[in-house]
Amino acid sequence: MASRQVPKILSRKLVAQSRLLKIEAVDLRFSNGEQRQFERMQGSGRGAVMVVPFIDDETMILIREYAAGMHEYQLGFPKGLIDPGESPEEAAQRELKEEIGFGCESLERLTEVTMAPQFFQAKMTLFVANNLYPEQLPGDEPEPLEKVHWKLADIDQLLAQPDFTEARSLTALLMMLRNKGL
Amino acid sequence: MASRQVPKILSRKLVAQSRLLKIEAVDLRFSNGEQRQFERMQGSGRGAVMVVPFIDDETMILIREYAAGMHEYQLGFPKGLIDPGESPEEAAQRELKEEIGFGCESLERLTEVTMAPQFFQAKMTLFVANNLYPEQLPGDEPEPLEKVHWKLADIDQLLAQPDFTEARSLTALLMMLRNKGL
Repeated sequence: MASRQVPKILSRKLVAQSRLLKIEAVDLRFSNGEQRQFERMQGSGRGAVMVVPFIDDETMILIREYAAGMHEYQLGFPKGLIDPGESPEEAAQRELKEEIGFGCESLERLTEVTMAPQFFQAKMTLFVANNLYPEQLPGDEPEPLEKVHWKLADIDQLLAQPDFTEARSLTALLMMLRNKGL
Repeated sequence: MASRQVPKILSRKLVAQSRLLKIEAVDLRFSNGEQRQFERMQGSGRGAVMVVPFIDDETMILIREYAAGMHEYQLGFPKGLIDPGESPEEAAQRELKEEIGFGCESLERLTEVTMAPQFFQAKMTLFVANNLYPEQLPGDEPEPLEKVHWKLADIDQLLAQPDFTEARSLTALLMMLRNKGL
């Protein structure tokens, strides 16, 4: 794959820390001798999952949720961190039950994505869920999530929605469509 | 769009800061009265761009670059922050010249994406570039970027590449393919 040797990490230092997040400064020497200091977020290493759930052959369920970074509501697919000891598939089942009140009998893995890998270790496995059955688990959201049904026939409207912008939700949707030949 | 009132911001506080990054704690009251503290990254508000450049009708140029968050080389499209005073289109032209040594005569806007909007304000405009012409601007990379040519006919291999995982690069690729009917 990579044709070059990764840079040598000369030193790592925790330079800032909040209740939930840690920022690390990393001194690096590249294979050409060049030295730089980069900053990156220290990941939990837990990984995350996202699921495109189909309630029938042509209807997906999305959720609309407050996004503090943007300070607005955003439309996207159910998602969450993998709990310690869980497989990605188990986390996907749990998140579906917590966020939309369904389990699923069929879970198809689409791919694994990263997000700004210059700064983050965050890996997320994307799934498609079929054959849903009702089962609710309690979530930890401050308010009930709004569930939104969307037909495959109306995909162009979804792609044009100003609150459907998250790159991992878009990747999951577009890859699912490509796999279906749509 | 959003059917609910966004939560009221009761207070904001800078809780951690490094040379480049700032973490903010935000106390929120949701419309149902529930109060929570969320953490988010304080954005630069500058926005970013990413470009899918075509050197001919069937060949894209990608770059392979060290990604400190993952500590590995990653394949993706040229990208970067918008400089103060620049339009997204001007930033796209500059990044192409810095990262692959080409300007372009035609720039088609695909969409604007976000990344983990729970935590970030980061907005990135995705473009497709055609009719390239050679023009190099100096970049600030610690080592020369590896340029990788990829044929549209080999898209399935690109989607299966273990180092082509960034959700915004995947969104740009999949949306370009969808627009071309591929």
